Amino acid sequence: MRLSRTEISAMLETAVVAARLAGQRALEEILYIRTTRKSPDELVTQADPICQKVIIDQIKEMYPDHGFVAEEGPDGKMFKLAPRGDQPIWWVIDPIDGTNNFANGVLCFSVSVAAMLEGRPVVGVIFDPATESMYTAAEDVEAQINGTRIQVNQQEINRFSCFGVDSYLDPSISSGLKIVMSKTRFRCLGSTALQLAYVAKGAMIGAVTTNSRLWDFAAGTLLIERAGGYVSTVEGQSLYPIYPQEYEGQMLGVLAANAVKKEEIQKLFRE
Amino acid sequence: MRLSRTEISAMLETAVVAARLAGQRALEEILYIRTTRKSPDELVTQADPICQKVIIDQIKEMYPDHGFVAEEGPDGKMFKLAPRGDQPIWWVIDPIDGTNNFANGVLCFSVSVAAMLEGRPVVGVIFDPATESMYTAAEDVEAQINGTRIQVNQQEINRFSCFGVDSYLDPSISSGLKIVMSKTRFRCLGSTALQLAYVAKGAMIGAVTTNSRLWDFAAGTLLIERAGGYVSTVEGQSLYPIYPQEYEGQMLGVLAANAVKKEEIQKLFRE
Repeated sequence: MRLSRTEISAMLETAVVAARLAGQRALEEILYIRTTRKSPDELVTQADPICQKVIIDQIKEMYPDHGFVAEEGPDGKMFKLAPRGDQPIWWVIDPIDGTNNFANGVLCFSVSVAAMLEGRPVVGVIFDPATESMYTAAEDVEAQINGTRIQVNQQEINRFSCFGVDSYLDPSISSGLKIVMSKTRFRCLGSTALQLAYVAKGAMIGAVTTNSRLWDFAAGTLLIERAGGYVSTVEGQSLYPIYPQEYEGQMLGVLAANAVKKEEIQKLFRE
Repeated sequence: MRLSRTEISAMLETAVVAARLAGQRALEEILYIRTTRKSPDELVTQADPICQKVIIDQIKEMYPDHGFVAEEGPDGKMFKLAPRGDQPIWWVIDPIDGTNNFANGVLCFSVSVAAMLEGRPVVGVIFDPATESMYTAAEDVEAQINGTRIQVNQQEINRFSCFGVDSYLDPSISSGLKIVMSKTRFRCLGSTALQLAYVAKGAMIGAVTTNSRLWDFAAGTLLIERAGGYVSTVEGQSLYPIYPQEYEGQMLGVLAANAVKKEEIQKLFRE
């Protein structure tokens, strides 16, 4: 099944509006943070479900029959609602990626909204509300930031290039991490989606995460591919297809790289 | 020698205006980045000296006889101009802290402006232009963000607290770093000044840097002290006095901590 250019454009526009509304709401809510523990290792604030509802309500108005997979569901679990119409489209949503930053007042967090069809993202939007940066991409549509085209960079692995890591130092990839952390200006901004957006923008040569969920990276990986970069599992295998109907919130690893250093970066994490 | 409340207020206002002008200029310049290598390990862009001149010009208009120590001088060296009047006040300036981010397009960078008297900061301002956050503090003046009081947090070292590290993994402090990186949500935003501002704001429980220069931390350390936190060398010794007249750009280490966990954090890096 293939969506028309017009359908894709309309969905992209819907995602942009929803992400912007949620991001603006998050910036209001950050002044009145109330935090609770969702699990031994995860925080949630009052703002996460509020912003998620803003996004889902906005999308439902246009696409009442589409499906949803989102971070905040009942009892600390994910939210899932299967599509009901003849279009098997799933919206995959992280209302606040970087909740820990958000809860603490570090202004690195983002809203991530993707639409997936047959196991692949076809629309991807990441909004960084604190800097008003709207990253957009879609199938057959170039990656942009605030309407201007972006591309992955051409940088080598060196002391001037930035590489995004996450704050879970997974022992299984520690040798690759150690090399990346000693050879590059590694960054740990605390928002996986934002780091993927920075790879797409050409601000980082790559990024790795071992502890992410589909809503953290669905939009970012499409952005990177549409900006000329590569994404894979940490082991270098194809990341997609991932079928939202089967997805139950398990942690996944993602490795993103620019075009020049794809193989070198992948090799680091395979050894 | 002690400055009057009026003198301190006027200097703080001057620092705020200078930092804001420079930050706004940096956001314009980021669209047209030209990067060169200042040393084997340091970048500089066309914007660094431009923004520095904006700051120094602004301060000189009010204080033509004060001294200056700033990051960008001739031949990749620092800039230094001794005070000429009877007030031994030195302005200590980093026009763009986080140059590597700035050069790559990662929107985590900051302007840092401090005034020092007799080896100690008496005025400190950090401006984060991408999020329009102005952090201010002065001797006998509370720490604020955009005019609202800030205080260090009361958090424990745990998986929900953020701790700022830098991207130089110094082997001499690696055991402390390893513990901090495994027990907290460590962050490496790529701007030392910004991370110190986040400690002052209560967004991070602490921060460590081994590879910083006076202009990276003079403003941030005052912010933290005025917000109720502690700063020291990495070994837990007094950081100040540091006399700008004797300072030649050598790398220094700084450890910052909130009020509750000061001793525990210091102990980590002493062992």
